[in-house]
Amino acid sequence: MSVGDVAVALDVGGTGMKCALIGVDGAVVHTERHPTDAGRGPDAVVDTILAVAQGLAGRARADGLTPAALGIVVPGVVDEARGVAVWSANVGFRDVPLRELASARLGLPTALGHDVRAGGLAEARMGAGRDAGHVLFVAIGTGIAAAHVVAGSATTGVHGAAGELGHILVRPDGPVCGCGRPGCLEAIASASAVARRYGDLTGTAAARFADTTSDDGSAAGPTSGRTMVTAAQVATRAAAGEELASRVWREAVEALADGLATAQALFDVETIVLGGGLAQAGTGLFDPLRTALRDRLTFHREPQLVPAALGDEAGCLGAALLALDQLETR
Amino acid sequence: MSVGDVAVALDVGGTGMKCALIGVDGAVVHTERHPTDAGRGPDAVVDTILAVAQGLAGRARADGLTPAALGIVVPGVVDEARGVAVWSANVGFRDVPLRELASARLGLPTALGHDVRAGGLAEARMGAGRDAGHVLFVAIGTGIAAAHVVAGSATTGVHGAAGELGHILVRPDGPVCGCGRPGCLEAIASASAVARRYGDLTGTAAARFADTTSDDGSAAGPTSGRTMVTAAQVATRAAAGEELASRVWREAVEALADGLATAQALFDVETIVLGGGLAQAGTGLFDPLRTALRDRLTFHREPQLVPAALGDEAGCLGAALLALDQLETR
Repeated sequence: MSVGDVAVALDVGGTGMKCALIGVDGAVVHTERHPTDAGRGPDAVVDTILAVAQGLAGRARADGLTPAALGIVVPGVVDEARGVAVWSANVGFRDVPLRELASARLGLPTALGHDVRAGGLAEARMGAGRDAGHVLFVAIGTGIAAAHVVAGSATTGVHGAAGELGHILVRPDGPVCGCGRPGCLEAIASASAVARRYGDLTGTAAARFADTTSDDGSAAGPTSGRTMVTAAQVATRAAAGEELASRVWREAVEALADGLATAQALFDVETIVLGGGLAQAGTGLFDPLRTALRDRLTFHREPQLVPAALGDEAGCLGAALLALDQLETR
Repeated sequence: MSVGDVAVALDVGGTGMKCALIGVDGAVVHTERHPTDAGRGPDAVVDTILAVAQGLAGRARADGLTPAALGIVVPGVVDEARGVAVWSANVGFRDVPLRELASARLGLPTALGHDVRAGGLAEARMGAGRDAGHVLFVAIGTGIAAAHVVAGSATTGVHGAAGELGHILVRPDGPVCGCGRPGCLEAIASASAVARRYGDLTGTAAARFADTTSDDGSAAGPTSGRTMVTAAQVATRAAAGEELASRVWREAVEALADGLATAQALFDVETIVLGGGLAQAGTGLFDPLRTALRDRLTFHREPQLVPAALGDEAGCLGAALLALDQLETR
């Protein structure tokens, strides 16, 4: 690889695609965003992905750069080894051989990855976990997912489905999760679960707040229109001492601590990096969570608990790392 | 390595040491058992380990074999990279640099490993998981621990404490575990927990069996003096339709299914191998457990659930594999 080489990187989500040209040194040279518009069906989404990737490669060449590789990351179950998007509810993919389609169209060596594992890879190698050999990256947004990164590589599992921290049992008598099972961590501690639970408890009161709290433009989750009070606002109200907000927030923090303690018992990492919307609650999350996690660890070593450093560019940076990694192993 | 080379292998437990000479082809050439007698203190235990290892090496030479390497595995927290037995309650070890002590005494390249991880390694490479690339080995006896083996190597964690499946939360309102936290899997589904729970429910009937109630906290399994009804007997009584036994067994199976579902969500393995005393319950365990696990898996792929194939030699075989592996990487 030479100095003028860049990776074309796409982080495809249910709503939008974050796209970038990223240098071999990790420098972000150029960024773009495009709507995914998943409702159009998987074929149309694939067409958009390929067109956007081609446009980025063209843009690189126009700027005198050489697009050396392409990295695409998507949510759901991703078989990195075969380059297939196995199952992705958000994007509407089911067994899409995206790596082959993209490399055929662009003529570039292409890597297909999982969005959270790619984000974890970037945080572990370039972000908040960069001094640790064993990192667990946990993304808490509409859902909860994790990436276990050891020695700069994220474990994928045999079917590409490893790291589903949102779907571990923490409350056998808890609410039913989107996956159909009761008591999953995601059903209690995701940003959308926190917002929903607060809405349920405050009943009509939540509806009354809605007018005044929508001015920051954020919603409870990308797909939720049910209540206008976001998880971040619940955190703020909890910090201000509001009773119901405090209760919902405490329940979420305790469930999250249970989930992280389980992960630590199994993975034994040095650092846990928290990303996604909920992590933006800052000390309102990290202080009580650190205490609750410490309470749960007996013989296990306590991991560092730190906020993600790369923001919502982590997935794109990870896609670029995956793209560039494959050049090194050729 | 040549055909006459053997590994000297020791699997050190709280009660006894399983010892063997194992050929480079995995053939067990010779076995011995010795008491650990951990009550004598760590120095005496180390002395015994070294003397036994030396005796085995001498025995190999007397038989015309060449002891090429030494592998020792112990329970607890083991730092394989540094060769230190960090913490082992059963054996009484705390930061014992066993690899260095052994290699100095015997003059052989020495590997120190963790007993369950070594057992998992052996099952994954030579036993019930030998056709799978991603294996979770779960040992269920007095406690519960697991080894996650990918591509023939067991993940250790940063401090050597990975795989503590017994200490994940499954029942927040459940019994207090030996580790001090409520609701750990081990407190409900280990062989000792099953025996204890049955004893509690059957009340005086169980108490009458136990003339020596030496409740040292560590001895509630098959070797317990607290109750004469073992987990295997509870399984048999459950199969015969006895009501309390059925209840205790069902609770254990369901907790175990919850624990395995959590592990599968995080690891996404192809095969789960169950070993240890409880796995000897056979179809009485595997049939209901397979059904309960299937009920809990929604989007994740169902792993194969199979009994361990190597019996109680797995730890020793794993110790030999660790010993021989280090010769290959030299």
